[in-house]
Amino acid sequence: MSILIAAPDWNSADWVERFRKLAPALEYRTWPEATDYAGARYAVCWQPPHGLLAELPDLDVMFSLGAGVDAMLRDPDLPDKPLVRIVDPSLTGRMTEWVVLQVLMHHRLQRVYDAQQRDKVWEEIPQPAADAVGVGVMGLGVLGRDAAEKLKQLGFDVAGWSRTEKDIPSIACYHGSDGLKPFLARTDILVALLPLTPDTEGLIDRQLLSGLRTDNHMGGAVLINAGRGRLQVEADILQALAEGNLSGATLDVFQQEPLPQESPFWTHPKVTVTPHIAAVSDPDYLCGYILRQIEAYEAGHPLENVVDRKLGY
Amino acid sequence: MSILIAAPDWNSADWVERFRKLAPALEYRTWPEATDYAGARYAVCWQPPHGLLAELPDLDVMFSLGAGVDAMLRDPDLPDKPLVRIVDPSLTGRMTEWVVLQVLMHHRLQRVYDAQQRDKVWEEIPQPAADAVGVGVMGLGVLGRDAAEKLKQLGFDVAGWSRTEKDIPSIACYHGSDGLKPFLARTDILVALLPLTPDTEGLIDRQLLSGLRTDNHMGGAVLINAGRGRLQVEADILQALAEGNLSGATLDVFQQEPLPQESPFWTHPKVTVTPHIAAVSDPDYLCGYILRQIEAYEAGHPLENVVDRKLGY
Repeated sequence: MSILIAAPDWNSADWVERFRKLAPALEYRTWPEATDYAGARYAVCWQPPHGLLAELPDLDVMFSLGAGVDAMLRDPDLPDKPLVRIVDPSLTGRMTEWVVLQVLMHHRLQRVYDAQQRDKVWEEIPQPAADAVGVGVMGLGVLGRDAAEKLKQLGFDVAGWSRTEKDIPSIACYHGSDGLKPFLARTDILVALLPLTPDTEGLIDRQLLSGLRTDNHMGGAVLINAGRGRLQVEADILQALAEGNLSGATLDVFQQEPLPQESPFWTHPKVTVTPHIAAVSDPDYLCGYILRQIEAYEAGHPLENVVDRKLGY
Repeated sequence: MSILIAAPDWNSADWVERFRKLAPALEYRTWPEATDYAGARYAVCWQPPHGLLAELPDLDVMFSLGAGVDAMLRDPDLPDKPLVRIVDPSLTGRMTEWVVLQVLMHHRLQRVYDAQQRDKVWEEIPQPAADAVGVGVMGLGVLGRDAAEKLKQLGFDVAGWSRTEKDIPSIACYHGSDGLKPFLARTDILVALLPLTPDTEGLIDRQLLSGLRTDNHMGGAVLINAGRGRLQVEADILQALAEGNLSGATLDVFQQEPLPQESPFWTHPKVTVTPHIAAVSDPDYLCGYILRQIEAYEAGHPLENVVDRKLGY
């Protein structure tokens, strides 16, 4: 029995080393170095090449090293075997840190004060308290809910939107296509934490952005995307920034990653780019999580956090 | 009976207008325009010139428009009349917003990612979760306590230090000169929210900064001062930055304000300067607060939030 590690953009040798430290007796192979896939019952993946997993004759379980499994689900030859996604409690806290940071940067006009510092300008800008600012969180899974609750504790007027109805105390919850318009109309700062599914792909487009509230101290609405790049239509974001409907955007994810050198986001004065680092798990935690599941599975216990392919997460 | 408004760096006419809207029947005068102080029973001040208040023959009560009263207490001729300070619940929330923002900017290496964006670099930097980072809040009054609690909710390992013993659930509390050393030794990010008193003036000096924990992902300790500028010895901060003991600083307050054009802080790559905006009260709220106290006082009720001159706040 062996474990195949297939994570094209990552350093496979580092992952083998991490796994070996925790479970030295197991056999590890890496893609593309492995010449033979026989006996590889477990695959540990991050964006593996399409078709690769179908070549594994003895595959039992696939593990995704990231929380998002959309890239794997797009593989038309993905084997009909359980796909396990990562659920990492520390990831929730990390995502909330990043979301709270970016919401506060816009609300407290940090980029305006950065510009004033460059010009040596000492000037106070009128600033409402957080309760005058509508923050809207799209996606109310574990990540969205925690971010919404922490933003509420800081005083923001927080609402949430999700595909299906949710009920979170102290958060105004909207759902479905009917709930989208009123949700956007009370939102100054939009935080996208949705999974990427056929329903959500391209959801953040010109029409959605034009429904946000713009009459605020920031001079327009704000988009913060820490979900998936393909949620957003990037040309529409640039247009909304140019037309003033958006006063700023903070993007951690993009249609293409790494963000191409020619992308206008890199140099846009109203855009903050971070390299998909909003919530990165501790690799040692991930290895332990996967090994615990393998051990349980070998002992005949059910797997946890198996992806529902119909829902896409 | 009249109210004298004496706030040299502020627009007195704006303040008169705000007061008039709420209490049109009262008489308002402004310094330096007023030629006669007779009948001025109430003085509403922000850093009034020393000696001015002693010239008011009919003075009953002095109000400070800012939370800090240290500048007024340094007036050797300050009349022996009650000095009321501002207590504004919305101010607490605003201060906490700013403190949380600045702590997260350092913890999440936002300035490093800003530099990467300028260079179009897509690279993840290792990032511990918040519970591995010691945040130390100096000053556990209303502001310090709220900031400490919100930072704790975000997962940071929070401790507090105060002059006298405090007990806050879930926050490790240190106090007095004996408690300072162990408090600093577990602090990666120091947040100063102390009032300025003879005891705290110049407290943030080379010796204090050298006691902070530097072995962290930020590459050194961090100072965030949103208390008073005269808490800090600015030459010592610059030296700690140069020697690497401090990896960064965010300063909202300075020994001299506005910060002089020649200050090295403006252009220091490791320093974020904001123009004393961490917590600014809503002026309309302040006017209502003062008018309510005047009304109560005129009706024979006691004043609230009178400064204890021995403590200095």
